[in-house]
Amino acid sequence: MPPETNFLRDPLGAVVVGPELFAAALVAQGVPVRRVDWRPPPAAEALASLWCDTVDAANRVALDRLLAAHQILVDVRPAIDVVPGMTRETVLHAGPPIAWERMSGPLRGGIVGALIYEGLATTWEDAERLVTRGAVRFDPCHHHATVGPMAGATTASMPVLVVENRTAGNRAYSTLNEGLGKVLRYGAYAPDVIDRLRWFRDVVGPALGEAIRRAGGIDLRALIGQAVQMGDECHNRNRAASALLIKALAPEIAGLDLPGAERRRILAFAASNEHLFLNVGMAACKAALDPAHGVTDSTLVTAMARNGTEFGIRVSGLGDRWFTGPAETPQGLYFPGFGPGDANPDIGDSAITETAGLGGFAIGGAPAVVQFVGGTPAAALEYTRLMYEITLGESTAYRLPALDFRGTPTGIDVRLVVQTGILPQIDTGMAHREPGIGQVGAGLVKPPRVCFDRAFEALTQIRAGAASTRRH
Amino acid sequence: MPPETNFLRDPLGAVVVGPELFAAALVAQGVPVRRVDWRPPPAAEALASLWCDTVDAANRVALDRLLAAHQILVDVRPAIDVVPGMTRETVLHAGPPIAWERMSGPLRGGIVGALIYEGLATTWEDAERLVTRGAVRFDPCHHHATVGPMAGATTASMPVLVVENRTAGNRAYSTLNEGLGKVLRYGAYAPDVIDRLRWFRDVVGPALGEAIRRAGGIDLRALIGQAVQMGDECHNRNRAASALLIKALAPEIAGLDLPGAERRRILAFAASNEHLFLNVGMAACKAALDPAHGVTDSTLVTAMARNGTEFGIRVSGLGDRWFTGPAETPQGLYFPGFGPGDANPDIGDSAITETAGLGGFAIGGAPAVVQFVGGTPAAALEYTRLMYEITLGESTAYRLPALDFRGTPTGIDVRLVVQTGILPQIDTGMAHREPGIGQVGAGLVKPPRVCFDRAFEALTQIRAGAASTRRH
Repeated sequence: MPPETNFLRDPLGAVVVGPELFAAALVAQGVPVRRVDWRPPPAAEALASLWCDTVDAANRVALDRLLAAHQILVDVRPAIDVVPGMTRETVLHAGPPIAWERMSGPLRGGIVGALIYEGLATTWEDAERLVTRGAVRFDPCHHHATVGPMAGATTASMPVLVVENRTAGNRAYSTLNEGLGKVLRYGAYAPDVIDRLRWFRDVVGPALGEAIRRAGGIDLRALIGQAVQMGDECHNRNRAASALLIKALAPEIAGLDLPGAERRRILAFAASNEHLFLNVGMAACKAALDPAHGVTDSTLVTAMARNGTEFGIRVSGLGDRWFTGPAETPQGLYFPGFGPGDANPDIGDSAITETAGLGGFAIGGAPAVVQFVGGTPAAALEYTRLMYEITLGESTAYRLPALDFRGTPTGIDVRLVVQTGILPQIDTGMAHREPGIGQVGAGLVKPPRVCFDRAFEALTQIRAGAASTRRH
Repeated sequence: MPPETNFLRDPLGAVVVGPELFAAALVAQGVPVRRVDWRPPPAAEALASLWCDTVDAANRVALDRLLAAHQILVDVRPAIDVVPGMTRETVLHAGPPIAWERMSGPLRGGIVGALIYEGLATTWEDAERLVTRGAVRFDPCHHHATVGPMAGATTASMPVLVVENRTAGNRAYSTLNEGLGKVLRYGAYAPDVIDRLRWFRDVVGPALGEAIRRAGGIDLRALIGQAVQMGDECHNRNRAASALLIKALAPEIAGLDLPGAERRRILAFAASNEHLFLNVGMAACKAALDPAHGVTDSTLVTAMARNGTEFGIRVSGLGDRWFTGPAETPQGLYFPGFGPGDANPDIGDSAITETAGLGGFAIGGAPAVVQFVGGTPAAALEYTRLMYEITLGESTAYRLPALDFRGTPTGIDVRLVVQTGILPQIDTGMAHREPGIGQVGAGLVKPPRVCFDRAFEALTQIRAGAASTRRH
């Protein structure tokens, strides 16, 4: 407790924080003055430096590019034929760059499975030797216009979805979704996982590619817009989008010159997979966000991705750098037989959906998904409402009936995240922390705050440099 | 204006309405009394007679049968092979019974088209001669376990969907949906309409039947439950249900031993038709409601149907009688080039969806549809909330995310409609009043109150008869 002061009896002094003018005035009146050298906290000052016409104009350019994207699914092709920079020795993976030594279990599992699938290794130990002697080139999917859910392992002979953004002319890529259960993306690499990937390579990929070309492409902007009005948020719930995609492709697949049993098997596999659309939607988001990247001075977030160890973000005006922090573990519901001790930290490129205004940002329109991650429809609406606080705009393509057809919150602004302290809401699947097991549940997760603090610091340094240049 | 009365100065009298005891007391005190012979209005007295254990128990039986229905789409077969009482000379039509002379334009158009399709007539005049000389047997679809949207014309060689209610063991039937534009159900009968019906008969019907049998049937209770969570109300919006149906059947259709172009054409037709599921859902509703019919003393409505001239309802405890009134014209939005003067009064058996807890009763979960009929999402939720006031229960299969997964209001009670004055809310398509033109828009409509008043009167007569029997 401070000592009591009797303001009527005790002599008064003053502490002046800030302008010298006030102190001088008091000294002139005979009041004793103690001067304190005070400045606003760096964040506030730095924030002020980023709320300026230059940054606002840059963000308008970046946001306009994001909102204007018109994505068309145009083909399915082997990665080696279409993914920029792909080689026979390359394994692309989810999230920011990471060395083998620091990779989590499911990421390693996915990579080992991919090496076995490519015939570059036959066992885990074999694959590890290959990696140790430097014969494998690792690189983030994101560095190759590609996105992959969970482990995201992508190699040369895998068929990839080709999504073209007709507005900007760029393309983005993603592998085919394998369904649930034991699958490569959750770090499983058993023989049946590899067999499925070979069926994809030999049958499904070529068939889908032919069907998509015959259909003249599939308008994904329109399809996602429909799915969002049908209760999907296109990250953890893809039921409507998957059905709409099957509806669009089934006539062409049915018309293919393949054995009847194979046509049937392709469509039966598609129909059995509620997440068939996940990778398609992710590539559509990547295709929309890439043109918004590289706008000088823009504070727009153009990627959020996790490698199972670190969470990383990229920002439009900050070039190729990743701003990373330790990945957190999602909070949610576990499949029977699993619990929090089984879950790997957050993993996968699928947070590209949130970055583009879907996933957790659209969860208010997907009340069924919140039951799956352990929430209520009312809470889901609140998550979406909160995301309007940290976004620069609203989608013109994805509209939420539950909010009277308001567009989803779109375009995360680093300034708004730092200023409000509100972190992006992601809803996601959870992988087992050991390789070879698979999905253990689904839940909600946020990026570590430090990603945004570091990006913010880099942005303010650029503004400080610009101000300094103007003064000289 | 009544003459002014000064209560302090003028002598007081009394008018006694009701119990003699009060009048006697006043007379004893020297107050002049004018006696009025008053009784509660018949409705209130009659209502009281229907709120009794006997009726409640009967309604529980009927409602339980309705809610317990488990409908499976098991086949597609020619009507003549499966529809009870179907003959080569029969034309089934929508709504309650009606003679040719009183039929509206679209109903006549659908019937003439059906006669031409069956090869029984070649022109309108030809068909009219056939009808006039009594060579055609008309009967409501509803009398043959069948339902048909709009005109509902159903004849011997048309392929019909076969829906089995696994709980009660009964079956219901409906023709295949023809899509939008010029179609028989809206009273069009041009050569391309007839050609499509022949393609249905020769190719689509047999293919769908084979696919459904190979798939081991389609669980419609589950499918509709999913669709309701995806923004369908399964009357005016069938987008999700249609996509889910295609997803379920596409593998088997793709595997059929048909020319590739024909497989493709069947699925392309299905994919182009947002209302593909309408007739399937209607048959599912009919299959659920039929076992709830015929429960002595039950006041549950088991059918609402319109023939374009009259609206009719049937009630579980009132046998085969229809209670009818003049059909009203829906209020809604018109396609370009059409207006209120073009619309036919309400037509079709599709109000079977509302009778089973879908359509207008589930419209709160289908905000997109209200834009199509000229309303707001908030108004749609209010329509659904209001329907809980006139229904006996809530669906256990169809749950609305927007109402925190509450079951849709299900099982219209004649007592509640008469007591509250709230009429069932129907959302529906609108046909042109002239034959041969087709759909002109979509909107909201209600049954005429007189249907319920007449059914109510019949119910109270039965109760009065029962009371009289007990007294003797």
